[in-house]
Amino acid sequence: MTFKICAIGELIVEFLAKEQNQRFDQTGKFIGPFPGGSPAVFADQVAKLGFSVIFFSCVGKDLFGRMCINRLKKDGVIIDGITSHSKANTGSAFVSYKNSSERDFIFNIPNSACGLLSFNHINENLLQDCNHLHVMGSSLYSFRAIDAMRKALDIIKSKGGTISFDPNLRKEMFDIQEMEQSFDYIMEYTDIFLPSENEVSYFAHSIGESEQQTMQTLLKKGIKHIVVKKGANGASYYGLNEQNKFTMIHVDGLKMHSVDPTGAGDCFDATFVSLMLAGYPVKDALIYANASGALAVSKKGSMEGASTLIELEKVLSRSACHI
Amino acid sequence: MTFKICAIGELIVEFLAKEQNQRFDQTGKFIGPFPGGSPAVFADQVAKLGFSVIFFSCVGKDLFGRMCINRLKKDGVIIDGITSHSKANTGSAFVSYKNSSERDFIFNIPNSACGLLSFNHINENLLQDCNHLHVMGSSLYSFRAIDAMRKALDIIKSKGGTISFDPNLRKEMFDIQEMEQSFDYIMEYTDIFLPSENEVSYFAHSIGESEQQTMQTLLKKGIKHIVVKKGANGASYYGLNEQNKFTMIHVDGLKMHSVDPTGAGDCFDATFVSLMLAGYPVKDALIYANASGALAVSKKGSMEGASTLIELEKVLSRSACHI
Repeated sequence: MTFKICAIGELIVEFLAKEQNQRFDQTGKFIGPFPGGSPAVFADQVAKLGFSVIFFSCVGKDLFGRMCINRLKKDGVIIDGITSHSKANTGSAFVSYKNSSERDFIFNIPNSACGLLSFNHINENLLQDCNHLHVMGSSLYSFRAIDAMRKALDIIKSKGGTISFDPNLRKEMFDIQEMEQSFDYIMEYTDIFLPSENEVSYFAHSIGESEQQTMQTLLKKGIKHIVVKKGANGASYYGLNEQNKFTMIHVDGLKMHSVDPTGAGDCFDATFVSLMLAGYPVKDALIYANASGALAVSKKGSMEGASTLIELEKVLSRSACHI
Repeated sequence: MTFKICAIGELIVEFLAKEQNQRFDQTGKFIGPFPGGSPAVFADQVAKLGFSVIFFSCVGKDLFGRMCINRLKKDGVIIDGITSHSKANTGSAFVSYKNSSERDFIFNIPNSACGLLSFNHINENLLQDCNHLHVMGSSLYSFRAIDAMRKALDIIKSKGGTISFDPNLRKEMFDIQEMEQSFDYIMEYTDIFLPSENEVSYFAHSIGESEQQTMQTLLKKGIKHIVVKKGANGASYYGLNEQNKFTMIHVDGLKMHSVDPTGAGDCFDATFVSLMLAGYPVKDALIYANASGALAVSKKGSMEGASTLIELEKVLSRSACHI
């Protein structure tokens, strides 16, 4: 089964605070730039698995931007949809970890080159053979970016393509009203939904309902596959089987030394979506995606943790999760 | 003699590459955030000398911005002219040194909160008792910023105040056309002109003319005091004495271990301008300014090297340059 995935959104450089609990208002050590941005990490992971993926974004005409583009190109991402602007800088993010899962960010995205991404950048010719669009909630950072995303969504849906959606909510971005408003729209078209555990309540229909209840309602509304990502606790799949019966599959997390969890969800998404499109059984896609997320946390830099299929198989063969 | 200085422009955080020749397109170590921005360092140095200074700028509503404001406030700068914006991030600069004098920058200024600084931010009431404006060329980064600067210039000039101007040219900013165009305008009103040695040729009237020739022409055009800053080689003053005769004074550089030259010119400017306004003889102002620039290079972070009068006197008493 041949397929080509499209991803759109922020391509940025990341700087990681060296110490835990390092403050942004005190001088300290940072390591960077690392190429990053959730949809960019997603695209990189798809390409590293050997599948076809095109990425749309904007960077500044500076060395940070050049680094990002070169990296995606080297890993096999189709970069024809990336524009270099001289009027704005490459976006950036500063990350500081409080503990192995909590982190603080300072994002510079809507006012960076990323913020210039617009409807006109989505070149229909480049989407000709695309049959899947992955949407990161974090990429819906402005009306302009949402407009670009809708254009790609309309083109791909009109050709019978599918959509995956990771809400990727970040408290630092929540003052961007447009983002929240566009979620309902995207959800209507979503085939594969990939929230994190702590995002589930945001999509609940009543207070106090269980994860399973929330997922059942979403499946009834038309979403075909849902995976709730639970970090070190693995992931839970929800779907309807061939008899239209509710199915749930859970995989436990692989034990990994967590160095930098940023990007783990993006790698998980990329592996699950790619393998589903490639025709893998749901359970196998879930197991590989789980391994992909686990490997991603073991390296500093959100894109550094993207893995090849062989690397995923090696990890799985060492663990109890034999395919 | 009481006076109050006004400075306007970029208030940003700086990140310094740890290694010499560190590349911006490779992952490495950075130290930061340091509060910075040329006019901000200028204002901080004026305040540390114990003189009155108000600073106008915009930062983001983020921890980087808070750090910058807190620092200026702690050092005695009047911060009522600084606005915190929620719609943009605090500006930033990444600095990498090639050797002790050459450096590469990646600036994020016009698209940061700094870029929102406009005419309306220059509150006339806050300028009531100001009688001097210092203009940094680097702060003329957009039509909006130039507009703000002109408003302050008009207000201060109309009250009989004076203007100092440091072109502060940076190759990374030279694609901002507005900046160059506004230089002629500012020069017309300049009383104290503070170029660096390598900027002199930019203000020459014919190819190959000497520094002295350039300065004589500028003095004839109405500039009253010129200091050419020469880094480790000290500084040269050009002016007209009471008999309207051309005068030149040179001071040699003080020997200092250079750790981070960014900000040295700003501290030099601040000390020279403050002491001239305070009624010091030209030669003394020059000697103190020279010491101020020398002390500034000995500390990492452009604002970290600002000195008190006592610190300057200590350095001068240790050197041959007795007042």
